[in-house]
Amino acid sequence: MDANLSFLFAPSGCAVFGASKDPRKAGHQIVKNILDSGYDAPVTPVSLKGDDVLGLAGYSDLADIPHQVELVVMSAPAASTPMFLYQLERRMEVQHDVKALIIAAAGFAEIGTEAGIGYQQALVDFCRRYSIRMIGPNCVGAVDVYEHFNATFIADIAMHPGGISVVSQSGAVGAWLLMNWRSSPAGRVGFSKFVTVGNMADVDIIEALEYVGNDERTRVMGLYIEGSPQARKLVETLGSIAERKPVVVLKVGRTEEGAQAAASHTGSLAGNDAVYDGALKQHGIIRVRTIEELSDTMRSCDTLPLPAGNRFFVLTQAGGPGIFCVDEMAGSGKFSAPVITQASKSKLRDVLPPIASICEPEGHADITAAATARQHVDALEVLLRDDGVDGVFFITVATLFLDLEEMAEGIVSLMEKLASEGISKPVIPVIISGNWVKPARAVLEKNEIPTFESPDRGVRAAANLIFYAESRRSGA
Amino acid sequence: MDANLSFLFAPSGCAVFGASKDPRKAGHQIVKNILDSGYDAPVTPVSLKGDDVLGLAGYSDLADIPHQVELVVMSAPAASTPMFLYQLERRMEVQHDVKALIIAAAGFAEIGTEAGIGYQQALVDFCRRYSIRMIGPNCVGAVDVYEHFNATFIADIAMHPGGISVVSQSGAVGAWLLMNWRSSPAGRVGFSKFVTVGNMADVDIIEALEYVGNDERTRVMGLYIEGSPQARKLVETLGSIAERKPVVVLKVGRTEEGAQAAASHTGSLAGNDAVYDGALKQHGIIRVRTIEELSDTMRSCDTLPLPAGNRFFVLTQAGGPGIFCVDEMAGSGKFSAPVITQASKSKLRDVLPPIASICEPEGHADITAAATARQHVDALEVLLRDDGVDGVFFITVATLFLDLEEMAEGIVSLMEKLASEGISKPVIPVIISGNWVKPARAVLEKNEIPTFESPDRGVRAAANLIFYAESRRSGA
Repeated sequence: MDANLSFLFAPSGCAVFGASKDPRKAGHQIVKNILDSGYDAPVTPVSLKGDDVLGLAGYSDLADIPHQVELVVMSAPAASTPMFLYQLERRMEVQHDVKALIIAAAGFAEIGTEAGIGYQQALVDFCRRYSIRMIGPNCVGAVDVYEHFNATFIADIAMHPGGISVVSQSGAVGAWLLMNWRSSPAGRVGFSKFVTVGNMADVDIIEALEYVGNDERTRVMGLYIEGSPQARKLVETLGSIAERKPVVVLKVGRTEEGAQAAASHTGSLAGNDAVYDGALKQHGIIRVRTIEELSDTMRSCDTLPLPAGNRFFVLTQAGGPGIFCVDEMAGSGKFSAPVITQASKSKLRDVLPPIASICEPEGHADITAAATARQHVDALEVLLRDDGVDGVFFITVATLFLDLEEMAEGIVSLMEKLASEGISKPVIPVIISGNWVKPARAVLEKNEIPTFESPDRGVRAAANLIFYAESRRSGA
Repeated sequence: MDANLSFLFAPSGCAVFGASKDPRKAGHQIVKNILDSGYDAPVTPVSLKGDDVLGLAGYSDLADIPHQVELVVMSAPAASTPMFLYQLERRMEVQHDVKALIIAAAGFAEIGTEAGIGYQQALVDFCRRYSIRMIGPNCVGAVDVYEHFNATFIADIAMHPGGISVVSQSGAVGAWLLMNWRSSPAGRVGFSKFVTVGNMADVDIIEALEYVGNDERTRVMGLYIEGSPQARKLVETLGSIAERKPVVVLKVGRTEEGAQAAASHTGSLAGNDAVYDGALKQHGIIRVRTIEELSDTMRSCDTLPLPAGNRFFVLTQAGGPGIFCVDEMAGSGKFSAPVITQASKSKLRDVLPPIASICEPEGHADITAAATARQHVDALEVLLRDDGVDGVFFITVATLFLDLEEMAEGIVSLMEKLASEGISKPVIPVIISGNWVKPARAVLEKNEIPTFESPDRGVRAAANLIFYAESRRSGA
């Protein structure tokens, strides 16, 4: 691990080579993102004509920038690499301040041409000579929310602090995740660091993982990967992080056909998937299958307490979605039905409408559409106070009669009250459906309680929480 | 099958018993929905005080309504059943015009009390006496888009005509589906009939399926079911419909635990799931596992041509999501990789950026983020014109540089042009991600081309299309 990686996330001064006045260009968006993120060191646009961009004084040569430049983001065409290196070289001779590069541009080794390979090698040689660290080429950049630094060309990232960090081999998949978070009910998901490694000409995925995994603000680590020539070292690195915090992995190339496509894309050897799968499981690393599951699981690991066991109660206001949830739980093989005390059952009968169906079967209550917001919350409290319950799926479907926002605020207050008494168990709110329920989901998510669109998504996230908790307890 | 069921969907005059001025009551929303849907026969609110509702003259007695009343929707508390039947009886003695009832209210046999069971039996006895047909109790009602009739209490249904019809045992699941459709990029999904059967005191799910399955405007039939005491007859009914049009089934109670929860909810016997599963498959009935898959598959069956084979090409603008798609395809076991002609490969090279990766491996092209909107569409055209291609997954991730709406409009024009030449193949657009891409997805969806949030959802819908097409070809 090289401490120089810190300059990728928190440089004291930076420049964007290939900056542009055109909002459709990456070289514009990168400048805009750095400015918008609240970065308080100087940032300088560099372009052929030395244009000013977004009110910042522009330069035509990196060597001429008067302030300190610890990081340069390069978003000019690959063919401008010789000029880029010429300017950098002169800067290093005089100011010798550059510590890191982000090469956002594409058209290097990944396209397999002699020129592309040559440009990439020239970048690597230069970095070695000056002990500069580089991510890319062919990546979308890096973000550090706590350092107020967003050096990507992804439009409209919500810079909200949280405990998730993400390392992605694919820029598109990284962007996919951030766009999903921006479109979530609260408009943001809290995170810490985000980095895409692209061609990995210098910093590879293992080094990025080691660096980001050591970040104290990172409470859960997410990874998208297509393959690695160092599969054993990769799994060991992930396993070592997983001893300290949950690690969630989306690895493609699961099938022979997918592995072939991966080899064509990044030249990655996907390796024998069953071997990967077994090794990940053995190390207590959570493996997920979809972007939704990656996101849901990271959010749950970041904000929910780990369950003490696998006894999850299904508290549902609608029969069908509740049965669906039970099916998904049973299908996952990760849950057992809690048996609550007679006192709890009696309390549920007291707080719920008379037509509610309670513990028939055990571990399941259908409180019916007659239940008010208050009754939803009161029933949840009874369950969370029962020692036989490790967690609760809380399922509700929008109706005219139910004030979903009042219900959401009630849950937030309840969780605060219980936490102050030392009771902390995961609640998985599934609030159905669509735009109609977004305001209520936003209330919960703004209070760091993740919500789910459907029972199956909630069940997968909770099953992953249980897997991690169990692997920690067994000392995996 | 009883022709009287038509009065549930297209009555010449109706009344709402339990109508309310309070927008939070079902008895208000039902009146509002009937009005808003453009229904052109009279609708009359009936309540204890005879209040006017939404400008409509109110009555306190069904017997006093001067116009024809073929359908009565009942949304008053179950305890008002005796008064409801008393008024109905007087009406039948004099006007004898009521042909159908929708009992939206809950609190009948489903809650298992003597009173609830008694009220339901009284309704059934009355219906038998006068040959009146009834859905419910404990249901959310019925919709017929083409008849401009929405007799449900679901807020904000988009009444857009299409070929999907849905029969749901659960009101909540039915509402879930309609709320999802309302929240889709175009704000609506076209459908024909929608009905939830609730307690099935008179019309059961099989009869509802037979009636709706015979609707000529219904091109695809969707079903949510928890179980049936007549499992064999149910499967045969579905199989008979599937000979004429695709049938998509979401059946819960897959697991023993889920079956127990279902038995508690509607008293349904879920039956042996493996037996159901085999019988459905044998009859060429599509079985899905989630609400998303139900919706995606119904939309695809309604608007996409059935593929002539299973050779689906992956045309992707981003490496990672493309590999993910290939993995999902291979995992499903339903696809084979198309081998396009040398001429097509050469055309792809002509229209695509030089850095594009074409047919390495076969059946897959990564056109890269350098591809313009025009290049996306031109590549799609080359593939759809190749006789070796039965369908295309078209995957793109939003970037600053790509005009997604121009691309979407290009696809619409291309599909029209090809259709006019007799070329009609399914294209599965996966446009990533979130709010950012909704305008482009709306362009496609307004032109009846369903779009997908992630490759896995597109793959499942296409695999279901292939399953149905194969079962038709083999005469299942």
